[in-house]
Amino acid sequence: MELYGYWRSSASYRVRIGLNFKRLNYQYRPVHLLRDGGQQHQQAYRQLNPNGLVPTLVDGKTVIHQSLAIMEYLDETYQGPLLLPGTAADRAQIRAMSLDLASELQPLINLRVQQYLSATLALDDEAKKAWLVHWFARAFASLELQLRDHGSTYCYGKQFSMADACLVAQVYSAERFAIDLTPYPRLQAIYAGLLELPWVAAAHPNKQVDAEN
Amino acid sequence: MELYGYWRSSASYRVRIGLNFKRLNYQYRPVHLLRDGGQQHQQAYRQLNPNGLVPTLVDGKTVIHQSLAIMEYLDETYQGPLLLPGTAADRAQIRAMSLDLASELQPLINLRVQQYLSATLALDDEAKKAWLVHWFARAFASLELQLRDHGSTYCYGKQFSMADACLVAQVYSAERFAIDLTPYPRLQAIYAGLLELPWVAAAHPNKQVDAEN
Repeated sequence: MELYGYWRSSASYRVRIGLNFKRLNYQYRPVHLLRDGGQQHQQAYRQLNPNGLVPTLVDGKTVIHQSLAIMEYLDETYQGPLLLPGTAADRAQIRAMSLDLASELQPLINLRVQQYLSATLALDDEAKKAWLVHWFARAFASLELQLRDHGSTYCYGKQFSMADACLVAQVYSAERFAIDLTPYPRLQAIYAGLLELPWVAAAHPNKQVDAEN
Repeated sequence: MELYGYWRSSASYRVRIGLNFKRLNYQYRPVHLLRDGGQQHQQAYRQLNPNGLVPTLVDGKTVIHQSLAIMEYLDETYQGPLLLPGTAADRAQIRAMSLDLASELQPLINLRVQQYLSATLALDDEAKKAWLVHWFARAFASLELQLRDHGSTYCYGKQFSMADACLVAQVYSAERFAIDLTPYPRLQAIYAGLLELPWVAAAHPNKQVDAEN
């Protein structure tokens, strides 16, 4: 398998965690989101991913974009530990938490939106920071409530799941933007534990071949 | 089952289509997104949905938010036609298209974001319209390419799927905002066909008990 991604992209980070968790080997193909005007916009990459976003998984003839669709595919296709364990009701909670981060938060604060805020709306640094703070606070406050009801060692009970892959990547993103995490003690505790897991540690942005710091 | 939703909410519309398609009966519980400062923010509703967003499905003791998580749950729990038919590779494409609409587009143009653009960023009507046009164009151009590769009668081949429920709701939203659809002939043709289906027609916003026009 080949994974097209970018070291600091939280959606790429999620999928690296998922692949490692399932002990699947893959070739990592860096797509630099800033160099050359954004390599994700180049014609060759757009043929793999019509959104011009990362990540994209290539598994033989199957080409899949969208990080959550990739993780569901891995679970349905390959043996090993499940990213979506439990009953249908359990999986519903795991999917809802994953979507709260990957769908309700990340698309609002990703690179292309930040570029629009700067280039088109001409927001200054303070207004851009306020935008990030606003949406992180909404999403993390909601997640903290769900962790109270469903969380334990992991986001959902005592088994690692897709929701944990999403949490790790989103808290990494929050740290980059210096978001205050003190209102979310459960989130912080689960995150600290997750970073110790070998399949999470190996997926860290700083450990990728395209890392720049 | 009970579905908490709002007639014009595209995420609610998706789930109504999914429930109808699977021939499941449910009680519809309207949550007015504008009245009383937004009923979705009230304490009683927040206990069901910590995001303060619609929809929420209540199935006995199981409470599920996020429209895609609800539809996956319905497929895993109830018999009847599948919202995610086919092989793992087929389902991956259906999920990717669904996420392109429900995750990459809708969270950028929903009510709470529009409220932020107006109230916090003080954008004028022209700048707000430009925001909507920009993100609809990105998402629909990407979808049109995918429909060329995968579409037929439906978004993915000749079987109705979750991607079609997402398409219907998002094109309805585009029409509300007077988005130009002429660059997307495949999208328009599939949409026109979908509107004729009885399980789609019955889910239309104007046919709900809380419809206001």
